[in-house]
Amino acid sequence: PDEAARAGAQERNGQLTKPPGALGRLEDLAIWYAAWRGDARPRINSPQVLIFAGNHGVASRGVSAFPPEVTVQMVANFAHGGAAINQLSALAGAKMSVHPIDLETPTADFTQGPAMSEAEVMAAIAVGWEAVDPDADLLVVGEMGIGNTTSAAAVAHALLSGEPSDWTGRGTGVDDAGIALKTQVVSDGLKANPGAANDPLQALRCLGGRELAAMAGAIARARLRHIPVILDGFICTAAAATLESAVPGALDHAVAGHGSAEQAHRRLLEHLDKEPLLQLGLRLGEGSGAALAIQILRGAIACHSDMATFAEAGVAGG
Amino acid sequence: PDEAARAGAQERNGQLTKPPGALGRLEDLAIWYAAWRGDARPRINSPQVLIFAGNHGVASRGVSAFPPEVTVQMVANFAHGGAAINQLSALAGAKMSVHPIDLETPTADFTQGPAMSEAEVMAAIAVGWEAVDPDADLLVVGEMGIGNTTSAAAVAHALLSGEPSDWTGRGTGVDDAGIALKTQVVSDGLKANPGAANDPLQALRCLGGRELAAMAGAIARARLRHIPVILDGFICTAAAATLESAVPGALDHAVAGHGSAEQAHRRLLEHLDKEPLLQLGLRLGEGSGAALAIQILRGAIACHSDMATFAEAGVAGG
Repeated sequence: PDEAARAGAQERNGQLTKPPGALGRLEDLAIWYAAWRGDARPRINSPQVLIFAGNHGVASRGVSAFPPEVTVQMVANFAHGGAAINQLSALAGAKMSVHPIDLETPTADFTQGPAMSEAEVMAAIAVGWEAVDPDADLLVVGEMGIGNTTSAAAVAHALLSGEPSDWTGRGTGVDDAGIALKTQVVSDGLKANPGAANDPLQALRCLGGRELAAMAGAIARARLRHIPVILDGFICTAAAATLESAVPGALDHAVAGHGSAEQAHRRLLEHLDKEPLLQLGLRLGEGSGAALAIQILRGAIACHSDMATFAEAGVAGG
Repeated sequence: PDEAARAGAQERNGQLTKPPGALGRLEDLAIWYAAWRGDARPRINSPQVLIFAGNHGVASRGVSAFPPEVTVQMVANFAHGGAAINQLSALAGAKMSVHPIDLETPTADFTQGPAMSEAEVMAAIAVGWEAVDPDADLLVVGEMGIGNTTSAAAVAHALLSGEPSDWTGRGTGVDDAGIALKTQVVSDGLKANPGAANDPLQALRCLGGRELAAMAGAIARARLRHIPVILDGFICTAAAATLESAVPGALDHAVAGHGSAEQAHRRLLEHLDKEPLLQLGLRLGEGSGAALAIQILRGAIACHSDMATFAEAGVAGG
């Protein structure tokens, strides 16, 4: 981040026609965004939403309420503009694109060994890296992949230990027996991939999926391009957490867009010390919560960059 | 509300390409809005933001961190487009107008007797009533008035009892001594106006202010026109609460836009059984939090009315 821009934004914030601090988190958001964009009075002109899709071998274990063919069906729905993320991206004025990654070749069932080879995970990371528009000024990454809450739970468990049940939840809507099965599958996954524990990139390879790897690649690229990121829900955050575990501070350019109804998301956000902007009980994925949160950031920037100062407006200070 | 439209919206919601319930509160919001608009697949085309301003005799007691002339200065700032609410209204695509009410005649100091006569409070209610565009499809009301957190605290105390200190807070930024003073002034106000306790319209007249009365009038008019309302922070909610106290259910057409940093707001919202859409620590007033929350409702309606159904998209259900 650009410390001169941050200081300039802080100074401007103190001069705007409002009591100090009265815009709460909007003020912090604007200053954070200004610092990353290197502009004390920034604009959001080119937000980008990237959706990555992958299929998971572990779906054959029956961990999802939906059949695996829904991944490719939903990719078609994204392409035709019919999904929630299409509407939320349009509302936010964001350019959205969908990137299915080798859907015809699911990852391997991670309870039997690594989900991906080194070459496969690197290829998926590269898909994410390349998908980022270097001229974007805000990035949201989302995902679609039947079975991927189980994959995300296994990644989170590898990164942060705890019990397998700390990281599993209802996903798209499994019942209690489904949660018990997911928990067993996560436990089996860690046993089958002992090298994944406490090794973030191995966790991504052995327990993750192509869409998780692509999200991590995109978030890393955004960091290098000084493009602020709004994180989505549990799966996005688990993918992002591999970066933070590998390089502490790697997510300083990211805020949490929303707190998912998936209970493990809260645990993950607490670990990352990120307070979600929205808490609306969403658990859809697709980048939906993060895309909705673009509007909050837009509100913060509109106030910061377009309000009058006390001097300009002739208003007496407090 | 229109129960056929509600049922139609519920049915549509169940057919959209997402797991049941995966959009969380957005689903409830869309169905609520559909019912009030009488349209199972509604649009938001004409949101309106009304800002009312009033001056308070009680400001002479030193209850605010800002001098009373800031009210008229901020009205000019609203008129020239320089305030936070101007930016947030524009972002939400809302038509905003500002309505100063007899600023040259502050209400009487309510520690000495009623703030307004019957004629004065009725005139202020009428300003709010008349300001509502009957063709609006969403309403936000906000306020400006140096001293009005004290007025709102006194109104809330009259409506809901408790201790005076339950209802007082930092407002625009007073210190601990300022809070103690506000609490004493609220206590004095109730003693000077015994008829205000448990009589909502007398509370509005004796302890409220012209902008509070106008907000109440606008919210009541919106109810009759089936225009859904997003409530702003503590002062707006205190004004609205007079309606609910007078006629239980009078705020069924309203949702809470945000939870203010002003601690009494949470208590008031709990009484009204309304969970705020946003919790971002705002404490500005002006309708700012509610205007920001328009974006959340817009997201809900965009998903509800524009997503494909499972059948349209050829996606397998869960």
